[in-house]
Amino acid sequence: MNALSPGELPQLLLAVSLLLATTQVCGALARRIGQPSVLGELTAGILLGPTLFGRVAPELCARLFPQTGGQATAFSVLTIVSIVLFLTVAGLEVNLARLFARLRVASAVGVAGIVVPFVTGFGAAYLWPAILGAEGGVEPLVFALFMGTALAISALPVIAKTLVDLDLYRTDLGALVIGSAVFDDLIGWTLFGLVVGLFREATPGIAGMGAEIAITVVSVGLALTVGRALALRCLRWIDRGARDAGGVVAFVVCAAFASAALTESVGHGALMGAFLAGVVMGGTIETSPRRLIALERLVGVVFAPLFFGSLGLRVDFVANFDLELVLVVFAIACVGKVLGCGLAARWSGLPASEAWAVGFGMNARGAMEMAMALVALQYQIISEQLFVALVVMALATSAMSGPLMKRLIGRSVRRLFLAHLDPRTFVPALLGQDRSEAIRGLSQVTAAVARLDPAVLADAVLAREAIMSTGVGQGIAIPHARMPGLAAPVVALGVSNAGIDFGAPDGDLARLIVLVVTPEHDDLIQIELMAEIARTFQHAETRRAVAHARSFEELSEVLRDAPGMERRPG
Amino acid sequence: MNALSPGELPQLLLAVSLLLATTQVCGALARRIGQPSVLGELTAGILLGPTLFGRVAPELCARLFPQTGGQATAFSVLTIVSIVLFLTVAGLEVNLARLFARLRVASAVGVAGIVVPFVTGFGAAYLWPAILGAEGGVEPLVFALFMGTALAISALPVIAKTLVDLDLYRTDLGALVIGSAVFDDLIGWTLFGLVVGLFREATPGIAGMGAEIAITVVSVGLALTVGRALALRCLRWIDRGARDAGGVVAFVVCAAFASAALTESVGHGALMGAFLAGVVMGGTIETSPRRLIALERLVGVVFAPLFFGSLGLRVDFVANFDLELVLVVFAIACVGKVLGCGLAARWSGLPASEAWAVGFGMNARGAMEMAMALVALQYQIISEQLFVALVVMALATSAMSGPLMKRLIGRSVRRLFLAHLDPRTFVPALLGQDRSEAIRGLSQVTAAVARLDPAVLADAVLAREAIMSTGVGQGIAIPHARMPGLAAPVVALGVSNAGIDFGAPDGDLARLIVLVVTPEHDDLIQIELMAEIARTFQHAETRRAVAHARSFEELSEVLRDAPGMERRPG
Repeated sequence: MNALSPGELPQLLLAVSLLLATTQVCGALARRIGQPSVLGELTAGILLGPTLFGRVAPELCARLFPQTGGQATAFSVLTIVSIVLFLTVAGLEVNLARLFARLRVASAVGVAGIVVPFVTGFGAAYLWPAILGAEGGVEPLVFALFMGTALAISALPVIAKTLVDLDLYRTDLGALVIGSAVFDDLIGWTLFGLVVGLFREATPGIAGMGAEIAITVVSVGLALTVGRALALRCLRWIDRGARDAGGVVAFVVCAAFASAALTESVGHGALMGAFLAGVVMGGTIETSPRRLIALERLVGVVFAPLFFGSLGLRVDFVANFDLELVLVVFAIACVGKVLGCGLAARWSGLPASEAWAVGFGMNARGAMEMAMALVALQYQIISEQLFVALVVMALATSAMSGPLMKRLIGRSVRRLFLAHLDPRTFVPALLGQDRSEAIRGLSQVTAAVARLDPAVLADAVLAREAIMSTGVGQGIAIPHARMPGLAAPVVALGVSNAGIDFGAPDGDLARLIVLVVTPEHDDLIQIELMAEIARTFQHAETRRAVAHARSFEELSEVLRDAPGMERRPG
Repeated sequence: MNALSPGELPQLLLAVSLLLATTQVCGALARRIGQPSVLGELTAGILLGPTLFGRVAPELCARLFPQTGGQATAFSVLTIVSIVLFLTVAGLEVNLARLFARLRVASAVGVAGIVVPFVTGFGAAYLWPAILGAEGGVEPLVFALFMGTALAISALPVIAKTLVDLDLYRTDLGALVIGSAVFDDLIGWTLFGLVVGLFREATPGIAGMGAEIAITVVSVGLALTVGRALALRCLRWIDRGARDAGGVVAFVVCAAFASAALTESVGHGALMGAFLAGVVMGGTIETSPRRLIALERLVGVVFAPLFFGSLGLRVDFVANFDLELVLVVFAIACVGKVLGCGLAARWSGLPASEAWAVGFGMNARGAMEMAMALVALQYQIISEQLFVALVVMALATSAMSGPLMKRLIGRSVRRLFLAHLDPRTFVPALLGQDRSEAIRGLSQVTAAVARLDPAVLADAVLAREAIMSTGVGQGIAIPHARMPGLAAPVVALGVSNAGIDFGAPDGDLARLIVLVVTPEHDDLIQIELMAEIARTFQHAETRRAVAHARSFEELSEVLRDAPGMERRPG
């Protein structure tokens, strides 16, 4: 309450409450019409900002969302804290180990996905800075670098969510897209750090720029190797003997703020540090999504909406809407990204439809690019018109990526567990008199697909079975195991005509036996798969139809058309 | 980044990170030596503030934690947001329905617990304002009202945590203490709103004061009735068809900020509004602790430590430590609260040791009183010396309440489920050939203690049993049910010499059958009880000793001395 005048604190609290409430309502409406929440959240800010509310009631708007003074400072700090936490969580979702495992396949698309749009954006901005909306005083090179970077970034959270919605997240295609997007974002935020650094220096110069690049690359490299080793050691130490994930959450927040402070103080912007901190700590057992759920959920529900809403408050989206500029920016953005990624994917051997799906998937810019645009606006690298154009482009590319991917691949109703079934793991006539024989039979076919030792797999499943029977009733059993060394889940489905006793609570013999084998350290996928299987087989018609399927094609058809299909939570 | 100068943002981020990290370390050390975390968190602030760090490196300290300017404003807004969220969560833990159910028994202690300390504090402050550290310009009446209120408040979160640690939370004694504390806090925060309002007015006057009191009481009454009905309707509407608790969390945060804005703008302080908003929305199915875990945990791990740490930063705790004042404040605080509550509890018929345990339990002031002291300091109602004395008193009363209660009642190692066992529900020789007979036998004795219909209870348990067997292996079965109209959990333990088939996965017959009956809307206690029972009976010696216990006394002794006793998380 220090420097805020007595009237300012309630105004600030009310402003936060009002913005948050409006983002929730608009976000829910956006989801209702099949659009991402971020579209609604941004719209909420536009409604409350100079575009609408500011025109209708300029005085009230200025009191709630002032542009200068202590209250404005306080509000902007709350949005900075929000975006720092948002980028940290985005970084945490990056699984570096998985990226390295798929580096070869992801790097072609990733490199093309950053180089082509960067060159397109850089070239266009360097040639026509005024047309694209560079601010008067800005160095053309810095502006061109910014445009290249802003067009090269991809929106990891949006892409991940789209893939989940399409049930593609844990497929090879999904892994390829995510791997490439991670690659692009890591390089993108490093580049962005450079742009901010260059802008802050009076005259960049080629030598200074080279040194800056070298220092940045080395620092990021050190953070991802030495920094990561240190962070993992700290996380493990904190987590040892802890009764819950509280200490880990606190450590993650502390580290993210410290890292953001560091990159901000060396001139690369707090955002780069926040994202890097997330990447450095992400993908470990200690920071698994389930353990950080408190952080991730509060960021998703409170901090991300606050940030996106605050973007809409920044400028007048109607007055600064320059249709020509919006179209030019949108076209340059799409051409670079879709062509770059699509062609690279095609050359990597993907069929045309999947290759273009990769291109449109990677094209989503989402929050990442909006965050960059905001910083560029604040440093007066770009005009308000270009800010609006970039925000619109980010929204449009995000909103179109899902429908276009769906259209190109047409898998939106494909079930997660169907995606992990294989023609070889469907056993329409499973032999075996008892649990043990049935499990050994299914393990045999599963082990071949999963590249595991069949005996080891069967023993693991039987050991799990011994702890508690996996008969769930209504003739369904879901034996399962988590296996070390497994890259992706494998599901097998056996139909037993005689029925086998799996100790179900209703006493019925199991006729459909679904074996679920998942990677050792991924609890989430096991739970998701088992829940989905149970949900699917709730319906008697589905059970009957599956029991009568004679081929994998028939089975796929039955499962695809099965009733009671709810979309899994994204 | 608006009004913060380029160097201020990294300093602010670093300051938050540093304070948070230090509170974590000091909080963990405090827990290690058996003290509440808040002691460590406050100490962290003292270490980083003018008391230590400010002496050693005044310049660096002033840069990280400045007292004026944009960075100071931003930091103080972060702490205000933290305390608003903390008080909201504290309010959410209040179960109004439960309070009303026990109003008769809680109100005697509650009224005494607020009137006696208020009168003591008011009287002392009115008679000797200068000795107690009133600021020069303040109206004696306002100062006296503040002192009365600050001494009358109790620390609901601290009290709840102490009761949980002592395994008393869900006992009758626990319910009495919590009910009284809720009562006191509701009235306390209403009073505090009045004090802030009175202070802000130039000259209170008796008539103005009366009007103010009437308006406040009516407003709080409306909030708890009409406001609550509206809030519950909104919560239910938001939650209908929602896939997770995200919307509810967002609503709670919005409502808390709006309520804080409202009470702040009418001059009663944001803190009162935040606590009231929590109370209004708390204790419903939609806002059960499990659903708001994201909010509660992040508040516990990040926001509460930030707030308590920031208290330590405020003043120099060494220079402003006035031993005489500290002792006087401490004495007045303890006399009023311990005597008032203890005597009222004694007169309500509690045995002496329990009555004094209630007194010392209610004596904890904790965070509530610190938050009040901070506002009073900011409005210059109290001197820095009195602020220090109040903080020390809050800490001391909180730290002593646990050990003193433990000493008076001596139950700290008593198990939760042992606390709910009754001599009448221990059946050392359970008859019955099968599950159904065993369950009916145990239901018979349990129903008498729980005041339920034995047939209804048995049917509920059998219905649950039909869904899935409750044999957990190693000769243990835990049949259970949740029953409407039940006030507190009841546990029954039967020993079957022949053994009964409860469908355990290991095929063993159950020799120890533990029946767990819990109130309908309390998931948590059921899970806690069942987990504790399973944990206790992991040990073969415990199982053997329990199976041979011939009396309730023998059983209690065995369970109390059983190995593998872990304290449940608080």
